[in-house]
Amino acid sequence: MELPASLVPEGTWIREHVVGRLESLRHPQSGPHAHKSDAWHAVVSYHADTAGGELTQLVNVIFGNTSMKENVMVVDVDLPECVLRDYPGPRFGVAGLRRLLRVPEGPLVMTALKPMGLSSEELAEIAYGFAKGGIDIIKDDHGLADQPYAPFDERVQLCAAAVARANAETGRNVLYAPCLNAPAHLIISRAHTARQAGAGAVLMIPGITGLDAMRELAGDGSFNLPIIAHPALIGCMLGGGSTNRIAGFSHEVLLGILPRLAGADATVFPSFGGRFGFSVEECQAINAGCTRPMGNYPAILPSPGGGMTLERIAQMREVYGPDLLLLIGGSLYAHSENLVDGARHFMKLAGRKALYGPLEHAPHGYRSHHM
Amino acid sequence: MELPASLVPEGTWIREHVVGRLESLRHPQSGPHAHKSDAWHAVVSYHADTAGGELTQLVNVIFGNTSMKENVMVVDVDLPECVLRDYPGPRFGVAGLRRLLRVPEGPLVMTALKPMGLSSEELAEIAYGFAKGGIDIIKDDHGLADQPYAPFDERVQLCAAAVARANAETGRNVLYAPCLNAPAHLIISRAHTARQAGAGAVLMIPGITGLDAMRELAGDGSFNLPIIAHPALIGCMLGGGSTNRIAGFSHEVLLGILPRLAGADATVFPSFGGRFGFSVEECQAINAGCTRPMGNYPAILPSPGGGMTLERIAQMREVYGPDLLLLIGGSLYAHSENLVDGARHFMKLAGRKALYGPLEHAPHGYRSHHM
Repeated sequence: MELPASLVPEGTWIREHVVGRLESLRHPQSGPHAHKSDAWHAVVSYHADTAGGELTQLVNVIFGNTSMKENVMVVDVDLPECVLRDYPGPRFGVAGLRRLLRVPEGPLVMTALKPMGLSSEELAEIAYGFAKGGIDIIKDDHGLADQPYAPFDERVQLCAAAVARANAETGRNVLYAPCLNAPAHLIISRAHTARQAGAGAVLMIPGITGLDAMRELAGDGSFNLPIIAHPALIGCMLGGGSTNRIAGFSHEVLLGILPRLAGADATVFPSFGGRFGFSVEECQAINAGCTRPMGNYPAILPSPGGGMTLERIAQMREVYGPDLLLLIGGSLYAHSENLVDGARHFMKLAGRKALYGPLEHAPHGYRSHHM
Repeated sequence: MELPASLVPEGTWIREHVVGRLESLRHPQSGPHAHKSDAWHAVVSYHADTAGGELTQLVNVIFGNTSMKENVMVVDVDLPECVLRDYPGPRFGVAGLRRLLRVPEGPLVMTALKPMGLSSEELAEIAYGFAKGGIDIIKDDHGLADQPYAPFDERVQLCAAAVARANAETGRNVLYAPCLNAPAHLIISRAHTARQAGAGAVLMIPGITGLDAMRELAGDGSFNLPIIAHPALIGCMLGGGSTNRIAGFSHEVLLGILPRLAGADATVFPSFGGRFGFSVEECQAINAGCTRPMGNYPAILPSPGGGMTLERIAQMREVYGPDLLLLIGGSLYAHSENLVDGARHFMKLAGRKALYGPLEHAPHGYRSHHM
């Protein structure tokens, strides 16, 4: 509101219908600041009309100017049905992605094409090897945009064709997901270029291109691919961390609720124990944001990355449950000169009993049930 | 890069042309962490090609995955001419805005139409009063989007007409700046709707709609209005603050360099001493980001807001220098029931000797010099 309260007196229409209402104020009952006398947990409610049906303004209501206040953190956001209905939500979610991939059970596995600097041909060759080795989703590294080394159109054509060739050989439906970290005026056209080239999904970076660009694509009737959210840049909008900082957004909201609200089908983040220092609790909170009830929105896939060792995999499956999209990065490249062998090794490490191509034994009844 | 270094050996093309190069590493020589043994100041350089000419990827290079690392802060960004030339830059800057407003000297003054909940007619009436009272730029409150109380098209038509009517009466060129915190697919069309309705500038929120949406509009050949950047949401991406936190971006980069790079002509932020707690040093740094040499880009206007008292105004002019766009919010509304009188009071308080309509004495030679 940002007007002296005296200008919007109690009882006026604006005070009742526009100004946020303090529903409760108490010391936090749980979490790292539980029962601390200098920490307060406030629940503030707003009339749905304050967002005017637009995600951009909804974000503004949640954390606009307040973001410039020190020691304020958005720990949770609870959206009513009437607000959720303003947005398309995730098109696929966990069940839809599993259907598309034809992988009814077990962890899903994703990797990234890198490093930047390789040619489109070289990246396509890597994509082919990973697809042959059974990785479910092969995404561009989030740093691949339209650089001269591997321009977007050329790269997407070649990588999509390479994955299609592998799929034709294996009978699987491995998805290639190019990165749409594109200039504002090119996001939608690149998305359609990717679809027409045979890409099976796309990677978006809401922290850079805006959360609403994802919402736009998720609601685009002529675009029907899954969207994977990448956390680049938004790391600096997170509270919590090793000092339990009261600032920014909680992991649950920023990496779970908000990308899901904007239509992401999976959300990438660095898992606990890796080089980015997210805690187990923070990762569990992201998982909760992906899966907790949220109107008619489907649950989406948490996609934790980093540090694939046998012990870590076991713990990750325990923390995230059966529906997760493991992201393997550098360790896959480091494992072996032979990418196909490396990919197969990691699929086994991830605990996948079958790859579910026609060469494998599909679980009884699965195809008829899902197709 | 995010690959084991062994996979990109020294001497390879990728190592030389793509991987960031550490230019220097030492304890900071100045600032709040000067000479601390646990603080390091690293200068890392990247080949311009890593951004591929796109602002979205440039931001990714500057602070993509690294944003998820604790205790890392972007304190400065130094861009070479070849990168600056990839973007249109600010169209007006300080000199252009002064020409447009026909105010060659003295502080410029901006205020906001509020509160949300008023009808378009009521907001237009307020705009008329402020324009008559001499405020230079009258912007929408950043929370005005397309709510049912005052839908965008209707509000912009009425407010632009009200300001035009006042201008016709005073001979001035007060600018009305509607808020373009719009869904991704509507930003450009709302910008043109605003221009056609007679708006004189626009307000954008790069933290929400993305920095690149501003770049797109700044480079739109058929759009020729100044752009004012608003800091909503990006507050939580700032380091520094009362605890001198090493995280996020410096104030200079986030509120000066980046909006200027994306084509903002003015950048709004909460001034020192106000309710948001920015320090004098942080505000000076924003001012430096607005005015320091940056290729051929013009200097842009710092627009500090909050707490207009006589003492504060004097100090603000000292800190920001002669070229600033003072943002007056609630105190203008609280001052008087008569908005025209209130506006005139604050124009005097701001130290403006003349309003520079034809009713005033224009400085000798000014018109011929600037028109």
